[in-house]
Amino acid sequence: MQEKSISKYPVPELNNLPEDIRNTMLAVQEKAGFIPNVFLTLAHRPDEFRAFFAYHDALMLRDSGLTKAEREMIVVATSGVNHCLYCVVAHGAILRIYAKNPQIADQVATHHPNADITERQKAMLDFAVKLARTPEAMTASDYQALRDHGFSEEDIWDIGAITAFFALSNRMAHLIEMKPNDEFFLMGRVPPAKKG
Amino acid sequence: MQEKSISKYPVPELNNLPEDIRNTMLAVQEKAGFIPNVFLTLAHRPDEFRAFFAYHDALMLRDSGLTKAEREMIVVATSGVNHCLYCVVAHGAILRIYAKNPQIADQVATHHPNADITERQKAMLDFAVKLARTPEAMTASDYQALRDHGFSEEDIWDIGAITAFFALSNRMAHLIEMKPNDEFFLMGRVPPAKKG
Amino acid sequence: MQEKSISKYPVPELNNLPEDIRNTMLAVQEKAGFIPNVFLTLAHRPDEFRAFFAYHDALMLRDSGLTKAEREMIVVATSGVNHCLYCVVAHGAILRIYAKNPQIADQVATHHPNADITERQKAMLDFAVKLARTPEAMTASDYQALRDHGFSEEDIWDIGAITAFFALSNRMAHLIEMKPNDEFFLMGRVPPAKKG
Amino acid sequence: MQEKSISKYPVPELNNLPEDIRNTMLAVQEKAGFIPNVFLTLAHRPDEFRAFFAYHDALMLRDSGLTKAEREMIVVATSGVNHCLYCVVAHGAILRIYAKNPQIADQVATHHPNADITERQKAMLDFAVKLARTPEAMTASDYQALRDHGFSEEDIWDIGAITAFFALSNRMAHLIEMKPNDEFFLMGRVPPAKKG
Amino acid sequence: MQEKSISKYPVPELNNLPEDIRNTMLAVQEKAGFIPNVFLTLAHRPDEFRAFFAYHDALMLRDSGLTKAEREMIVVATSGVNHCLYCVVAHGAILRIYAKNPQIADQVATHHPNADITERQKAMLDFAVKLARTPEAMTASDYQALRDHGFSEEDIWDIGAITAFFALSNRMAHLIEMKPNDEFFLMGRVPPAKKG
Amino acid sequence: MQEKSISKYPVPELNNLPEDIRNTMLAVQEKAGFIPNVFLTLAHRPDEFRAFFAYHDALMLRDSGLTKAEREMIVVATSGVNHCLYCVVAHGAILRIYAKNPQIADQVATHHPNADITERQKAMLDFAVKLARTPEAMTASDYQALRDHGFSEEDIWDIGAITAFFALSNRMAHLIEMKPNDEFFLMGRVPPAKKG
Repeated sequence: MQEKSISKYPVPELNNLPEDIRNTMLAVQEKAGFIPNVFLTLAHRPDEFRAFFAYHDALMLRDSGLTKAEREMIVVATSGVNHCLYCVVAHGAILRIYAKNPQIADQVATHHPNADITERQKAMLDFAVKLARTPEAMTASDYQALRDHGFSEEDIWDIGAITAFFALSNRMAHLIEMKPNDEFFLMGRVPPAKKG
Repeated sequence: MQEKSISKYPVPELNNLPEDIRNTMLAVQEKAGFIPNVFLTLAHRPDEFRAFFAYHDALMLRDSGLTKAEREMIVVATSGVNHCLYCVVAHGAILRIYAKNPQIADQVATHHPNADITERQKAMLDFAVKLARTPEAMTASDYQALRDHGFSEEDIWDIGAITAFFALSNRMAHLIEMKPNDEFFLMGRVPPAKKG
Repeated sequence: MQEKSISKYPVPELNNLPEDIRNTMLAVQEKAGFIPNVFLTLAHRPDEFRAFFAYHDALMLRDSGLTKAEREMIVVATSGVNHCLYCVVAHGAILRIYAKNPQIADQVATHHPNADITERQKAMLDFAVKLARTPEAMTASDYQALRDHGFSEEDIWDIGAITAFFALSNRMAHLIEMKPNDEFFLMGRVPPAKKG
Repeated sequence: MQEKSISKYPVPELNNLPEDIRNTMLAVQEKAGFIPNVFLTLAHRPDEFRAFFAYHDALMLRDSGLTKAEREMIVVATSGVNHCLYCVVAHGAILRIYAKNPQIADQVATHHPNADITERQKAMLDFAVKLARTPEAMTASDYQALRDHGFSEEDIWDIGAITAFFALSNRMAHLIEMKPNDEFFLMGRVPPAKKG
Repeated sequence: MQEKSISKYPVPELNNLPEDIRNTMLAVQEKAGFIPNVFLTLAHRPDEFRAFFAYHDALMLRDSGLTKAEREMIVVATSGVNHCLYCVVAHGAILRIYAKNPQIADQVATHHPNADITERQKAMLDFAVKLARTPEAMTASDYQALRDHGFSEEDIWDIGAITAFFALSNRMAHLIEMKPNDEFFLMGRVPPAKKG
Repeated sequence: MQEKSISKYPVPELNNLPEDIRNTMLAVQEKAGFIPNVFLTLAHRPDEFRAFFAYHDALMLRDSGLTKAEREMIVVATSGVNHCLYCVVAHGAILRIYAKNPQIADQVATHHPNADITERQKAMLDFAVKLARTPEAMTASDYQALRDHGFSEEDIWDIGAITAFFALSNRMAHLIEMKPNDEFFLMGRVPPAKKG
C-alpha cells in the first residue's frame, strides 16, 4: 500500500468520498489508467478539491492561444524553480506526451533558457518564472517582451493565471509532501510500444 | 468612472455577465455596500471567477480552528511580503473589522513579528510567510513550531492552504494591476458612528 | 501608560531631559498636538538625539528640487522595503498630509510601481529602493534614469541622502522596536473636519 | 590633483568653507597628517556635514562597553557586506591601528566568522552584519546571543547604532563614489619605523 | 550530426586529439557504449581536460566512506540548485544505476529533503547544497550535523570537495551550454532487458 | 608553529609527502620565498593536490588574450563576492605585483565597479562575478557585452574557466578554513626596496 506515504494527511478511501468526487476520480482513472495522487490527496478536503480542479480545468482545458504543451511548459518551469517534486514529475510526464518529446520536461524543469524550445516559448517562460518567484518585480517591459513575440493580452492572462494557479498548487504539494505516482516517472520517455 | 483603471484588462458591465456571477456581485454589494474590485476584475473570465470564489469561500468561510481574524492575518501578512496592494488594502480592512483593531492591519502587513498579536499568532504568520516566499525551504521544525503552539494538523492545513490560495491571488492582482476600491482604505479605522 | 512599550529601552521623562531636547519636544508637541515616539525613544541618548534630528532637518527642511511630499515618498517607500513599522506609519501620515491624498502612503509603502504618482516620481523611488536594499548594485544607468526625468545632480544627492538617513533610522527603529503613536495611524486619512 | 575623482560631486576648497567646518578639517589634518576624503567630500553640504560628524563622534568617541577597536570592527564588517570601498579601507586602517594587528581588517572585511577575534566579538559582528543587511529579520534570539556573551543592553544599542550609522555612511559613499585617500591603504600594515 | 549543438565552442574530432585524450575517450566509449559530451566538449582545451578528469577521478573513484551512489547524490543535488542541465541529466543517470532506483535522481535534483533517502543522506545533501550556493555561510553547526550522523572528517572532506568540484563543473557546463547525450535521459529508468 | 591553524585538517610534513609534491613545494618556495598555505593544506590529499595545481597552471600560466594581472583580477573579484579570505589575500598580493598597483586588490575585492581599472576590465569582472554567484542567470547579452569590448571566444572561455576553477578553490578554502600566510598581507603594498 503506497497511500500512507503520498501525503502527510489522511488519504480518503474512494468509497467514502462524495459521489461527484468519486466519479471525477473514476473518470480520470479510466482515461489515464491510474488515479494521480493530486486527486487522492486533495480529496481530504472535498470543497477545496472541487474548486481546485474547477480552476485547473478552466485554465488548462479552455481554448487558448497557447497550445496544451505550452501550458504544461509553464507548469513544469515554474514548479522547477519552486522545487515542487509532484508537479515537476506529474506535469513533466504530461508535457512529454503533449510535446511528443522525451527530453523536454527535464530541460524545462532544470533550466528553461537552454531548452530545445522556441525563442517565443523561452520568453513565455521568462515571464512565468519571474511572476512565480518575485511577483512584485514585474515591469512594463516584461509584458512588452511577450507582445513582441506575438502574444495577445488574453495569452498573457493565460500565462500569468497558470503561473498563479501553480503557485497555489506547488505550495499545497509542499505543505502536504505530496508524492508523485510511480507511473509518471517513465510516462512519455519511451515509445508507446515498449509500455505494453 | 473608475473602472478603466482598476485592471489592465476590460472590466465587464454587470448587465453582460452570466446570471450567477451577477447575483454573486449583487449579494456582496448588498452586504458590503459596494462591489470589491476583485469581483469586477476577475469576472473577465467567468469560469476562473467561479473557481476563485468557490476556493476562497471553502477556505475562509469553513468551520476552522482559526478565527476569521486569524485567517485574514495570514492574508495580510503574506500579501505584505508579496507587495500586493489590492490584498493588503482590501483584506487589511476586513482584518481591522474582524479584529476590532484599527492598527492591526498596518502592523501585520509591514512587520508581523512586532505586531500586537499573540505569540501563537506570530508563529502562525512565521509559517505562512515562509511558505509564501520560499515553499521549498519548509522543514519539520516549521511544522513542530505550530504544534508547540497548539495548532492541530487541520489548522496547519488551513494556514498553508490560505497561504497557497493568496499566492495565487497576489499573482493575479499583480498580473492585472488590480486596484483596491476607495472604500477599503478607511474601513475599520474609524468608529462606526463616523461612517454614517 | 503607553511609554513602557514604545521602545525596548527606557524612555526618559520630559523633566529629566536636557533643556534643549525638552524644548525640541515641546515645540513639536505644540505643532503636532503630540510628541512622536521617535523623539521620546531616541532621547535615551541625548548626543545621538541631537545629531539625528539635525541630520533629519538638514535633509527634510532644506530648499530642494524635491517637494516635501516627494521627500516623504522616499521615506515611506524605503521604509516599506525595510519593513519598518514606525517609519511607514509615521511618515505615511506626513506623506498623506503633504500630498493631500489619503491613499498614497499605503500605495507607496506596499508597491510604489503601481502607486498613483508620476513616472518621474516612480523613477525617483526605483533609485531610492535600490540604494536602500542593495547599495553595491547601483550603476551609471540608475543615475541616468533620474537625469532623463529631469532630476539635477543636487536632486540626486537629496534622493540618495534621504534614503541613506532612513537606512539609519529604520535600523534604529528595528533595534529598539520603536512603536508608532496611535495618532499617526489615522492622520491624513479623513477630512480635517472630522478630526475636530 | 586628486580632488576631481574622490567624489562624483564638487569638492569644496578649504578656503571657501564655513569656519567651523574648516577648523574641523584642520584639526583632523593636524592629528592624522592628512584630511580623510569623507571630510572633504561631505563638506559639499555643510549642514549635513555637521550632523554627520556629530553623529559619528557621539557613537565612536563616547564611553562604551565596547573598545574602540571593537567599534571599528563593526564598521569594517558591515561595510564589507555592503561592499563600501571607502569605509573598508579607511576604517580598516583605523582598526589595524587600534587593534595593533596588521591582518585584522582584511579578515573582518572579507569573512568575520574566521577572523582572529574572540567568540564574543564574532557574536557582536553576527548581530551587526544581520542588522546591516536584513534589519527586518532580527529576532529575540539575536539579542539573546549578545547577552549570553555578556553584552549589556547599552552595549547592544552601541552595536546597533554604529551599524545603523554606517548603513547611512556606506550609502553616501556609494552615492557619491567616495574614494579613500592613498594614505589609508598602508596605514597600520607596517611597523611605524618604516613609515618614516 | 549533433556535435554542432552540444557546446558553444568547437568540438574536436577524435582523430585530431592528443593520443592520451583519444584513448581516454575510447575507453569510456568501450565501457558506456557512447562518449559522454563532457569529454567531447572539454577536449577543446586538452590541458584543462586532463586536469578536470584527473580531479574527477581522484574524488569519485577513490576509496571513501561515502558509497558511489552517495557521491552521485551530491552531484545531482548541487547541480539541481545550480540549474545545470548536463550534470543533472548525466549524473542523474549514473545515480539511478548505482542506487538501482529509477526515481531517485528526479527526487534529489528537484527537492532532496523529501527524497526517498536516509536521514543521514539528507544531512549530507543539506551540507552540500549550502556549500554549493552560499559557501560563506557555513558554520560550525553545519559540520556538527554531519558528525552527529556518523560522518568522519575525511567523509566531510569528500562531501565538500565533490561539491566544490561540481561548482566548477556546473559553471563550465553553463559557460559553454553543454548538452547532455540523448542516452542519459533514459538510462537507469527502465529494466536492463528493455535496453537490449 | 602556525601549521595547526592553517587548516581544519592535518597538514602533512614535507618529508612525508610524495616526491613530486615535495618538489613542487620546494620549487614554489625557491621562487616565492615561502610555501603558500594552499600547497601545504591541500597536500593532505595528494591526488587532488596534483589535479588542483595542474588545473590552476593550465588556466593561469597559458598563453591567453588576458594578461596575468587580468586573470588575477578575476580571482580576486570572484573570491571577494564569495567572501574567501585565503584567495582574496593571497591572490590580492599576486594581483598587486602583476599590476604594479598597491591599491588595486582592495578595490577589486571590495567593489570592482569603482576600481581604477578599464571599462573593458569592469565588463570582464561583471561577467565573472555573475557566473560565480548565479551561473544559471547568464544570458546571451552577458556574452555580447564581452564581445563588444573586444574579447574573443577563447578569452571568454578563459574568463569563465578561471571563475569556475576558483568557485572550486573558494569552496575548498571555506571547507577547511584555509588561512593565508602572513607574507601575503603586505606583498606588493610597499616598494620592493623596503622588503629587503
